[in-house]
This record gives sequence, C-alpha cells and structure tokens, in this order.
Amino acid sequence: MAEPYVVRFEEGSKEDQARLGGKGAGLAEMTRLGLPVPPGFVVTTDACRAYMKLGGVFPAGLEEEVWQAVGELERQTGKRLGDQERPLLLSVRSGAQVSMPGMMDTVLNLGLNPATAEALGRRAGQRFALDCHRRFIQMFGNVVLHLEHDAFESILREERAAQGVASDPELDEAHLRRIIDRYLELVERVSGGAFPQDPRRQLLLAVRAVFDSWQNPRAKVYRRVHGISDDLGTAVTVQAMVFGNLGPSSGTGVLFSRDPSTGARELYGEYLAQAQGEDVVAGIRTPRPIAQLALDMPQVHRELERVARLLEEHYRDMQDVEFTVEDGRPYVLQTRAGKRSAAAAVRVAVDLAHQGWIDRAEAVRRVTPEQLDQLLHPGVHPDAANEVLARGLPASPGAATGRIVFDADTAERLGRQGERVILVRPETTPDDIHGIVAAQGVLTTRGGMTCHAAIVARGMGKPCVVGCESLRVDVQGREVRVQGGVLGDDEVISIDGSTGRVFRGSVPMIQPGMGEETLELLAWADGIRRLGVMANADTPEDAELARRFGAEGVGLCRTEHMFMARDRLPVVQAMILAEDQAQRSAALDRLMPMQEGDFYGILKAMAGLPVAIRLLDPPLHEFLPDIEELAVEVALLDERGEQWSEEYQRKSAVLHKARQLAEFNPMLGFRGCRLGLIHPEIYRMQARAIFRAAARLVREGVDARPEVMIPLVSEPREIEAIRRDVAQVHEEVARESGVALPLVVGTMMEVPRACLLADRIARHVDFLSFGTNDLTQTTFGFSRDDAEGKFLTRYLQDGILADNPFAVLDREGVGQLVAMGVARARSVKPAVRAGVCGEHGGEPRSIAFCHQRGLTYVSCSPYRVPLARLAAAQAALEG
Amino acid sequence: MAEPYVVRFEEGSKEDQARLGGKGAGLAEMTRLGLPVPPGFVVTTDACRAYMKLGGVFPAGLEEEVWQAVGELERQTGKRLGDQERPLLLSVRSGAQVSMPGMMDTVLNLGLNPATAEALGRRAGQRFALDCHRRFIQMFGNVVLHLEHDAFESILREERAAQGVASDPELDEAHLRRIIDRYLELVERVSGGAFPQDPRRQLLLAVRAVFDSWQNPRAKVYRRVHGISDDLGTAVTVQAMVFGNLGPSSGTGVLFSRDPSTGARELYGEYLAQAQGEDVVAGIRTPRPIAQLALDMPQVHRELERVARLLEEHYRDMQDVEFTVEDGRPYVLQTRAGKRSAAAAVRVAVDLAHQGWIDRAEAVRRVTPEQLDQLLHPGVHPDAANEVLARGLPASPGAATGRIVFDADTAERLGRQGERVILVRPETTPDDIHGIVAAQGVLTTRGGMTCHAAIVARGMGKPCVVGCESLRVDVQGREVRVQGGVLGDDEVISIDGSTGRVFRGSVPMIQPGMGEETLELLAWADGIRRLGVMANADTPEDAELARRFGAEGVGLCRTEHMFMARDRLPVVQAMILAEDQAQRSAALDRLMPMQEGDFYGILKAMAGLPVAIRLLDPPLHEFLPDIEELAVEVALLDERGEQWSEEYQRKSAVLHKARQLAEFNPMLGFRGCRLGLIHPEIYRMQARAIFRAAARLVREGVDARPEVMIPLVSEPREIEAIRRDVAQVHEEVARESGVALPLVVGTMMEVPRACLLADRIARHVDFLSFGTNDLTQTTFGFSRDDAEGKFLTRYLQDGILADNPFAVLDREGVGQLVAMGVARARSVKPAVRAGVCGEHGGEPRSIAFCHQRGLTYVSCSPYRVPLARLAAAQAALEG
Repeated sequence: MAEPYVVRFEEGSKEDQARLGGKGAGLAEMTRLGLPVPPGFVVTTDACRAYMKLGGVFPAGLEEEVWQAVGELERQTGKRLGDQERPLLLSVRSGAQVSMPGMMDTVLNLGLNPATAEALGRRAGQRFALDCHRRFIQMFGNVVLHLEHDAFESILREERAAQGVASDPELDEAHLRRIIDRYLELVERVSGGAFPQDPRRQLLLAVRAVFDSWQNPRAKVYRRVHGISDDLGTAVTVQAMVFGNLGPSSGTGVLFSRDPSTGARELYGEYLAQAQGEDVVAGIRTPRPIAQLALDMPQVHRELERVARLLEEHYRDMQDVEFTVEDGRPYVLQTRAGKRSAAAAVRVAVDLAHQGWIDRAEAVRRVTPEQLDQLLHPGVHPDAANEVLARGLPASPGAATGRIVFDADTAERLGRQGERVILVRPETTPDDIHGIVAAQGVLTTRGGMTCHAAIVARGMGKPCVVGCESLRVDVQGREVRVQGGVLGDDEVISIDGSTGRVFRGSVPMIQPGMGEETLELLAWADGIRRLGVMANADTPEDAELARRFGAEGVGLCRTEHMFMARDRLPVVQAMILAEDQAQRSAALDRLMPMQEGDFYGILKAMAGLPVAIRLLDPPLHEFLPDIEELAVEVALLDERGEQWSEEYQRKSAVLHKARQLAEFNPMLGFRGCRLGLIHPEIYRMQARAIFRAAARLVREGVDARPEVMIPLVSEPREIEAIRRDVAQVHEEVARESGVALPLVVGTMMEVPRACLLADRIARHVDFLSFGTNDLTQTTFGFSRDDAEGKFLTRYLQDGILADNPFAVLDREGVGQLVAMGVARARSVKPAVRAGVCGEHGGEPRSIAFCHQRGLTYVSCSPYRVPLARLAAAQAALEG
Repeated sequence: MAEPYVVRFEEGSKEDQARLGGKGAGLAEMTRLGLPVPPGFVVTTDACRAYMKLGGVFPAGLEEEVWQAVGELERQTGKRLGDQERPLLLSVRSGAQVSMPGMMDTVLNLGLNPATAEALGRRAGQRFALDCHRRFIQMFGNVVLHLEHDAFESILREERAAQGVASDPELDEAHLRRIIDRYLELVERVSGGAFPQDPRRQLLLAVRAVFDSWQNPRAKVYRRVHGISDDLGTAVTVQAMVFGNLGPSSGTGVLFSRDPSTGARELYGEYLAQAQGEDVVAGIRTPRPIAQLALDMPQVHRELERVARLLEEHYRDMQDVEFTVEDGRPYVLQTRAGKRSAAAAVRVAVDLAHQGWIDRAEAVRRVTPEQLDQLLHPGVHPDAANEVLARGLPASPGAATGRIVFDADTAERLGRQGERVILVRPETTPDDIHGIVAAQGVLTTRGGMTCHAAIVARGMGKPCVVGCESLRVDVQGREVRVQGGVLGDDEVISIDGSTGRVFRGSVPMIQPGMGEETLELLAWADGIRRLGVMANADTPEDAELARRFGAEGVGLCRTEHMFMARDRLPVVQAMILAEDQAQRSAALDRLMPMQEGDFYGILKAMAGLPVAIRLLDPPLHEFLPDIEELAVEVALLDERGEQWSEEYQRKSAVLHKARQLAEFNPMLGFRGCRLGLIHPEIYRMQARAIFRAAARLVREGVDARPEVMIPLVSEPREIEAIRRDVAQVHEEVARESGVALPLVVGTMMEVPRACLLADRIARHVDFLSFGTNDLTQTTFGFSRDDAEGKFLTRYLQDGILADNPFAVLDREGVGQLVAMGVARARSVKPAVRAGVCGEHGGEPRSIAFCHQRGLTYVSCSPYRVPLARLAAAQAALEG
C-alpha cells in the first residue's frame, strides 16, 4: 500500500524527518511528548516529489487526504475553515528535511476573507482581526501570488506617515481597513485577478506555492552552497493558528536551550510582544531579550524554560524553539537543533559528552570542520587603540576588514576582483545571499541575533554584527552616517563579530588559540581518525604554529618562497643570469648557507617529526622582472637616447634573458624536476643544504628528520635519475659530517601520467605526495589562474560543475587518478606512504575522500590542521 | 646441450640470422648455394651477449671453439695462422642481426706481422704484402687499439707529399716500409705498448673489439634512431682473406640486383680496382660504375650478374652484394637486402608480387611508411630557371633548401633552433649522424652511391647529393668554392637528391604525385587495413588533395585559420572588442556568410564523405596583437605627448582588452568549449554556417555530410549543453531551408578527465576524436611550445624519454588514457566511432597502436594519408 501523502502530528515522530521535513517531524515529536503544540498535519515530501515529477500537478489522492486532515483539525479545534462564526485559521509553512532558514516561504492566518475576518473580529476584537487580515493578504500576496514585498510595505509606510505613527501597533481600525482595501486593489491590479477569498482555494494555492518555492533561485543557491540535493523536496506543515498579536499579553519569540554564541547552559532568546512569528525572524523590529519575559510573564517564562530543558534532553542537543504566547498561554511552534557559533558547537558537544548524553564519537560528529575553522579566525587585537565607530550585536564571531559596499551585487563584483569588502545593509534578506558569500563580513543596523544576516553569516563562518542602530545606512546615497560623520563606499571599516564592535579603517588582528574544550574534542578526534595530518610550512614560524595545532610533521615545505626573499632574490637572479658555469656556481655557493639556515630552523621546529622539503619547483623566469614592464622601460630609455647608460645595458640584458626564459604556458613548462634534471647543480645545492642542516642538528642532539620531495614527475626515469644524484650528495654529506641519517626521497604526483605510471614510479621512492592543485589543472586542462576569473564562476552558476574543483577535490576525474595512483603504487610497494598536499588537504569533503581511498595523510596550511584532524575523524566514523 | 658459440659457414643458413648476424647468415647461405665464398666461421651473438653479461670477459669455452674453427679453416685453405711459409690471413668483421652500415668495425689482413708479411711477399710480391701490412696496422690500430684514424692518415699524407705522389698505389716498397715503421712507432708511443704481433692474440683482440664496438656511442645513436634493441649484440664473422689489392686484375666492389634509386631490374653497382673492401664503402676514392667491369673483365661481370640474379630469386628481394676480385676471380663477401629509395622500394615490392615471388600482403610489408612518405617529398620544379651550381650523384631522392653548415654540431645546434640547414662535407662518417638527423639534406664532394652519406640519408629519407667533385669544401675556412665563386656559411643552397643538382638559393618546389605502382600498392593496403584514414583539412584545396591521396573524409577541419585570414581578422577583432551584445552580434553577422562560404567549399570537395568541423578552439587573445609590442607602442606615444591622437586611443583600447584577455597558461585557458559555453553566440554562428552551407549543397544535388566537433571537453555537462544548442540551430536551419540532414555531433578528447569520464561523455555524442597533441600536453604536463626548446631534446639525449611524445604516441601514459577512453565510451555505446586526429594520426607506430586498440580511424595531414593507409595495413598484418 502506498504511503499516505498527509500525516497528522499525532501519527508522526522525529524519525520521520525525511518524509515530514524537520519542522513537521519536530511538531509530531513534541505532540507525542505532550507539549503545547497547536494541532495540525503535514503534507509529505513524497507529495512534493510527486508534484515535481508530474510537472507541477498534485498527485491523485492528495487533495482528498488534505480535506480529510482538515476535517480532523476542525473536529479537534471546534472551528471550521471558512466558517462565518468560528473560522479556523491556518499557518502554512514549508519544512524541508534539512533546515533552510529564510529560504522557504510561510503563510499565516490563512482562511481569512472579509466574512471570516468579520467573524474573527467579533470573537477577538476588530483591530486584531484587521491586523491579521492585513498580514494575511500581504503574506499570501507576496508568497503565493508573487507580488513584491515592497509594494505592500510602501502602502504601509505611506499610511503610517499619513497617520503620523511610527509603528504598526499604533495604526487604528480605520487605518487598517484602508490598508486592506489598498492591498486588495494592489493585488487585483498587479496579478490581474481578484484576491482568492475561498479558504479552501487559499489552502491549495498555498501548498502549491510551498512546493514551487523549493525550486526558487535563492533556495537553489542555498542548496548549492550547502551541498543539499535538489531531489529531496519539501514538506508542508498546516497548523491551527495561535496568535501572538492578540494583545499585550501575546507575543512571539525564539529561544535557545543554551547561548548559541558561547554554548553556556542558560536560556537564551528573544521575544517580541504583540507580533506574529515572522516578525522576529525577519529582523524588522528589534526584539527584547528573553529575560524580559521573566519579568513580564514569569509563569510563561518558567514554562518555556521547562520546555527547552525537556527538549534538549530529549533530543540530546541544544534546541532552537519557536514559540507564540497567545493571551498569556505559550505554544511551541517548532523545535530544531539550534544553529550555533563554532565556540558553542564545541562547548555543547564536549559538555553533552561529559554529561554522558552522547558518546565521544557523537561529540566529534557534532562539530563541523568549518566551525572548528572559525575558531581559528582572526580576532581584533585587544591592546590596539582602535577607533570604535559603533556597537551592535555580536552575531557571528571573528573579525574582518574591508571596503564598505551597500548591495550584494557590488559585493559580488568587487569580491570576484579579489577585493575585500564588508556588506553594510539596514537588514539582509535571502536575496542578499550572494553578497554575503562574497563579503568578508556583514554589518546590519537592524535585526537581532536570530535575524537573517546573523543566521546566514554564522552558517558560513563569516564575522557579522547586527542591530547596530547608531549607524544610519543610506543605500541610495551610498553612505553611512555615524556620530555626526559620514563614511562613503570608498572607505574601509573593520567589524568584530565576537564583540559587536565596528571600527574605522583596518585594525590589528590576532590569531586566537584553541580553548580547552577544543583541545579535548581534538584529542578525541585523534583517537578516532586513521588519516595522518601534516602541515604545509615554509618557515620555522609556520612549522611551530603547525605543531601547536597538532600537525604530525611537515608534508610540504616549499623552497621557492625562500628564493623570493628580498635578500636572496638578487643572488637567485645572478644565478639565472650567469653566463658560465663558474658564475652560476658562485651564485649557488652564496645561496647554499642561506638555504641551510632555512632548513635548520624548520627541521628544528619539527624535531622528531618528518619534514618533506620540496626542491625548487617554479620556472626560473618567475624570479625575473615582468617582461612587458622591462620592454617599456628599455624602449623609453632608447627613445631618450640613453642606449649607453648602465641602466639600459643592465635592463636590456635582463630583458634578453627574461625573453629567453619566457614561456607560453609556464604551468606546463620548464619547472619542477625538469629544471632539476637540466640544471642538476640547483638540486644538488638544495640537497646539500638539507643534509648539512640535518647533520648539524643531529650533532646538537636534535632529532631532525628531513625528507626530499621531487616535484612534477611525469616519468619514472626522472625520479630515478634525481634520486641517484640526491643519494650521492647524501653520501658525501654523511662522509663529511660523520652523521648518517636515513635517506628518504618522495615524489609529487602532479600530472596524470605520474598517476598512470605510479607502479613504476613507486619503485624509486619512499613516499608519494599528490599535488592535487596541479593535478586538477592538468586533469581538467584548467589553468587555475585563468579559469577562476574567466569561466569557472559561470560554470558553477550554470551547474556545469557542482563544485569548484580547486576547492573540493573532483572525485570523478582527479580523484579517480589519485585512487589509481595509490592502488598502482601499492601494488608494487604495499607500504608506500601516500598523501595529498595542497588546498584539498584542508577541505573536509576532500579529506573524507582521502580517508576512503586509503591515503596515509593529508597536508594542509597550519590553520587548517585542527579542521583536518576533525574531518579525518568524522570520515573514519562515516566509513 | 648449450648452443655452440662458433658456427662454421657450412653449418649455418639464412634462418640463423639472430645468432649469426645478417652477414654471417648470408655467408652461410651462399656457401650452401655453392657460390664462391671464402671459407670462414661466425662467433655468434650468443657469445657477444654472454661477453657483455660477464662485463667484458669471454665466456668459458669460447676460445677453444674459436681455435677449433681456425684449425678447420687452416685445413680448408692449406694455410696456417702465423705460418712463416703459407700464412693464413683473416678478415674479421662485425655482423649484427639488423644491418647497421658503417656503424661497426672491421679488420682486414689479420695475421700479419713482419715474419708473415715477409712470407706473403715471397708468394705474392713485396709491394702487395707491404700494402697489406700497412693497411692492417692502420685498421687494427684504429679499430682495436683505438688510435685516431687521422694520426695514421697524416703519416700517409706526409709520406705521399715527401715522395711527391698523389695516391697510395704510387707509393713504392721503400715508402711503405718507412710508413710501416712510423705506424709501429706511433702505436707504441700512443698506446704505451708494442703492437701485438702474435696472430692468435690479434684475433682474440679483434673479436673483443667487435664485441665492444656494439656499445660505442655512434652504434648506440644509430640503434636509437632506428629503434633497434640494445640487447641483441653482434656476431663476428672470421673469414679467409681474398685480396682486391693484388694487382690490376684485382679489385673490390658493391653491386645491387636492381637500381636502388628506381627499382629498375638491371645490375647496378660500383667497382674500385686495386683496392680492399672498405675503400668503397668509406667513399674515400670515387669508384667506377659496374658497367665498366663488363668492359674490363667481361667474364667476371657475367659471373657477378649470375650471382646477383640467383640471390635475388633465392631471397625474393633485391640484394646488395659485396664482392672482391682476386687476380681475375670473383668472390662474394656479403649479401643482404639492398637499401633502396622509396620509389625503388615500391617498384620492387609491386614487381615481385606481379612475378608471384611474394604475395600482396608481403609486398605491402616490404615498403616502409617512411619510404612512401618520401615519395611525396617535394622536388625541384622542372620549369623554374634555377642557377645550377654543380652536379653530383643523386644519392637520396627529394629536394631540400637550407643554409650551408660545415659540421654536424652546428647543424644540430641550428636545427634545434628551427633553422633549415644543408650539411655540406667533403665526406661524412658515422660521427656525423646527429648532423644528418638535424639537416634538411646532405651534400658531399666525395663518395659514390654507396658511400656513408648516401646510405644514411636514404635510410632517413633525406635528400642527398654525393660525389659533387666540382665543389671545393674548406671546412676550416667555412666556405665552398665553386665555379670561381665562394659560398659562405650564411648562404642558402638547394639540392635535388633525385637528379644530383645543386642550386644557389632556394628554388621553387613541386609536390610529386604517386606513380601507378604506388597506387596499386596502396589499393592492396586498403584491402588489408581495418583502420579508417581521414585527413585534417582546413581549406577546399586541402580537402581535394586529401581526397586524391585516398582520405575517407575530413577528420579535423579547424575553423580558427579561417578567422585568421587577412580579410576576416578585423571582423574577428571587432567581435572581440565589442562593447555590447549589439556590436558583437553585428560582427558575428558579418562573419557568418564568410564561414558559410568556407564550409560550402570543403563540404563540396568532400561530397559523399564525412567532414568533422571543429568549432572555434583557440583563446580569443590569439586574434589580438602582441601585448608587449602594444605596451611599448603606447608608452612611446605617451612619451611623445601623443595621448590625444586617434592612434593612441585605439591602441590603448586594444591593449586594455588584450590585457583583460591575456592568460597565464593559454593552453589551459579560456578556449575550446569553454569559450563556446560563455559566448554561445559564436558556436551558434558557426553551427548555422555549417548547416546552411550543407543545406545549400543538398539543394544543389551534392551529398554534403557535415559533422560538428566540440573541442576541449572535460565534463559531460559541457557537451550536453552545447549539443542542445547546436541541435536547436540545426532544427532552425532545417525549418528555414527545408533540408533535413542528420545531426552528427562529436567531441574532441584532449584532456585526461574526458578520457576518465568517457562513458558519461559518450552518451551525448556520435563520435569521439582524441586530440592527442593536447592530450599529450596535459597528460605529461608538458607545454609543447616550451618543452621542445627547453628540456625535451635533453630528455631524449639522456634517455629519460625514448621518443618525443609529440611525434610518437606515448603508449604507456597517453595511450593508456586513449585506450581507457575508447573502452569506457564503448561500454555504454558499443558502436561509437573513435579516432585520433593530430600529428600522431600520421605516424606509423602511433597508427599501429590505434589499430591495436580498436580505434575506428586516424586523421592526419593530406600528405601523410598514403603513409597512414600503408601503416594501417601493416598494423593489420602484424596483429
């Protein structure tokens, strides 16, 4: 027998989330727990999927099931839909399996029309009924009939102005009637038909609108950003209305069973008197803290506290509860796992594990790698004397600096150009998502901790300050007024989402350490994970930092940055410009001790742990000035008749060499081990510097563990030849120094051919490190530098690619090569170590892939090491 | 029982080539046929391999076997090694399985020392014995003791000068004694020991030297160039001497059973009186044609003619026979398949098949693809009035133009820089091989048709003129004197290897057609092959040419060259520089009819056959001027205060756009289908032009078969989206024109990811074309433009790579991806066509690979189509 399309709250439970959506399953569960939930039913996601499959037509039987459930509701409430005495009013809300705040649409007060409003007014007061009717037309007009939200708001604004009142509750009955008339006129004018007054038709249209809203562009963007499948569909909850706008002892609010910023175990939330549900979430009026309710209605507050505790224990997680107080009686309208800051996530998880409500594995599962990453976001340095412009609510932790932008499109455009921007808005709406994605941080003048901007920014780990009411934002005029001054859109500000402060200009930042709970959680993660976590570090400072963050060694130490250092570059250039072997050797002789010093520091910082040092990788022309600039300079000197000047001679010579070395496609050019094979003296110098530094340390009693890594191998004979050379230097240094360290040589797997020939390559190496950045470039044939600016963004927008392959490892293509490489290498050398270095090594989904495919380790930037430890543990728990 | 290390001629046959080498097996076979072969034996390749494996030590038992065989020889000849009355003299020669002319070393007259020379003198004349002794010391000294050839030659020159004689035969006994003394002194001084006078020791040293010579650098180069395994080893033939230098009725020569240039069935060869074997091959003295012998010694000539006929029939192939006439009696010293020109190869193969000596498959096997290619080499236009500088012997057909170079190193250096050079030498030696490889052609002033330069050049298919005695080459002075004039090494000459003419400057060339025999052979090949052969053609002219050469369609029609045409480029640039959609559309509207015309012509030329048209592939910046030049021009205009000029404005604008479009790695950049997806209007215009041209042709009664090919696909959704677009245009044109052609869409497989995801890609296409040039670039991570100049040559020299992967398809890496791509595509669409286009499609080894892996077709340049047809047939015969 087919599953029913409609499920009454009494019939469901929290296990039915896939069919009932998160909201519906929560309401069903709370109904079972005996909590005060207004009765209702759920139209399931099965119905939505069937509707989508039929191309926007209700499946057979759905309507009948809905009317049956409505009938049941009418029996439960003693009211009837469309009844002219006791009209049943409904709240119709979407509820997908995964919470998508602000993404989907809601209609309250459904069932109202002139006749039922009149009846409602008779029972609960005319003004209240008119307020409900006004709200209903506006919501239904916007959500179901697709009229602009602002078209209604501007009527409201005009009427407020005309009446000289500041807020909606001040509007009287006459005003509201006038507004309702104007609303109905507006709907008729714009939609070309009368407003549907039949409550049954209203209900079917609303269900259809919820189903349709699953496919609206902002929902799609949200799902893409959060990796949610487009196929899930949404459920619709239909519930008897309770009214927060019934009078001064009514209201609506949101509460958390803990503080979502810190995780502290205290009731937290906000309350807006004489308001309906969406008023709080939309952040249009600034609500009062929940503590206020304890003074105003202590009994209601106590009851809510009991509900929150009960739900937290029942769900074994911090809960985010929507409630409405109708005439002094609290109702629970929704419960879900509460969104939380990174710090709160860690604290709650560790806390619950200590309480014994969840085990350690579950605690490790409870914190996302992104949240952990957020904990390591920069904060504002406490000692710096910064000019505080304003203070708002600390809505999402971390600090950020950027140029002011006033709209999402500009944020996106400048962001794409690499500019750091702060999105400054009176409030944000779902239409601003792409701007929040592009911005470093978000600042709003309105809204509370649970407003749209706050929730979205927390989800993305972006610093956010909301409700900063001392700022006046003029979006049209592109300026912010503050303390008598004005900031334009060419000025830079900083925000601190952990404290709510806003600063003029950029401010000194600090890197926060990790709290005790984080360390504890990571220790649990380390006990679970099987994937090693190393760090990419090019300096002793980075190596120390990585070690503090728990890195088990350095998986990638790049040597080119050392060559680029201000004091080295002239020597490097002298080596490149050398006209004969003697000049080249002289330059290399000068570089050797410098390199030895570099390696000494890093090996020392990583004492007892391996350090894989990659020999020189970039093409030599990267160390020379830009050809175009040089050509212009030389042409101008020529034009000025200065052909005989020393400057002309020197620049001409450099230009000549730069032209000789210039390449059409440097990414695929004369670099990596190719350079090492044609100019073996460079790699020999580097190998010597490495082994000498290590020998010196060993003589000083330090356990130095250098490993030599050869970049860009495409052919087994390359690594064979270089290994031979390196081994010879190793032997020479051992002889000179009397210190015999083991020789460990690895190779970077960065081109497809290396993966295809990994069995033959493995014979010559002790480990393989997949350089997935370059491997992605060669597997796709995408130059990263060119692709991201020129076509990749469009590819992601148009759904040609689901993820940016430079951010998330492409499992289908690049991943296939990695897996092939590991399998082939292990077929001849079963114990060979294989890792991934590069940015994918610090990206959770890519880390999960590495775990699944049996890689030995990932290597990532020091700041991503904790994240990688957690992600690796979660991958182990998944598998 | 182990195989013996020594085999007497009587014991072997032509089947034993692997063990006896080509020379030894030939001598054995001729001995069995009862031909006049001086008796002897062969030290086998087994012995050589054992010797190499032991690191240069004779294997146990070898020496004993040698002395046994020598004993047998002594019995047969009635002479004894070292005997002071009737000394046995030996010729010791190398003989590998595969003929390696001039690569290996030979010692004649072995067994001589003062005492045996004295004895020989008593029996055959003192002067003769001294001449032999002189020759022996020189050869042994050079080949076995490794003294410089020139050290001996300069003594010889000094003595000739001192005696005032021009040639060696004029030297008298006293002179020769003096020369011998000086030779012995020289050996003692340079080698630090006395010349070995014991004949047995001489023999062992000579055998050892032959074995060692297998490993000498020039032999290795020859093997690498010709793809011969280093593991084969060489045999050594030891044979009783016969003497071509015994007097005027003695001599030595080489003859062919047919004319090696034309294949005509007439005795051909050269003869040098009073000379020993190597004098002819070395090309030091210019020999007389064999016809001369018919006049001088008619009976000898008749006997040789009989031998040649008999051997040709016996071996069923044209033979190259070495002979020596001793005192009026001819001896055969070697027979082998004769090297021949391409024309001769075809004629001989077809002729032998007609005679029924070989079947058609064997005839197809007998001609190498390279030979066929040579037939299509340019020749000098017969009608052009060119200044003929000189005439030499037409040693290897085809014509070439290039700058004069006088030594192999310079030829290689300039060749690597892309310069076309002609190597001009008095004569060439094996040390010049790398210069011949690098040159367009070879010109020598000495030597005959069988001299080193001639044989090597023919083998490589390079035009070659030898024995051009009217030229005087001064290698030191770097000039050629001719007809009172002088040519330096900065001048250009042309040579015609088919006629022997040398021209000043470059001359007009023609492309020869194919003769009837070639057409017949190719028809046989077509009957054998299973791989299709298509052509790459961008113009109607190319398409017609390809069709004449037997192409079964166009496998790749590039459209970018059409965009580059002088009249198109400004319109293309206008499209690129367009500031809005309207401007861009206007430019595309202008391009459309031009493109339609292009396609009309090509589709018409290929009526009845498919034409795969690749939509625009290169990045747009390729159509704009060079940034560096523009930047300099703009900077100079600025310096001159011309910022307000129209030129400055225009150039600045173009510079700005060019900078916007510039890419770090264009090869991996915004090109191919990426361009097509972001600017769909370009592909739509091209698709419309294709379908309109085809519709027009169909209405005119022409069977047009266009196919649309999408470049650089890396993701199935790319081809899916573009196919949708193209299908829409296809439908529109069908509606407009009323002509409904089938829609055929294919994709280029040019990046590894396409191969890895070929199953998903195949669902959207009708055919796959592997663009192995780009696939090689991405699989190796080699930019072709950069690699070849910067490291690939060294990689080949150092043996890191065996072949240039851009010339010969890399089976291990790139080939693996191609095979994977074909297999995966066919797993979902078993009949999907799959081909290789690009240069590999015209390279025989790559063609063989394509056949083996079941590809449907190859596509190559029109001139390589015949070669591809032959190579495909040969691959089918192999498999």
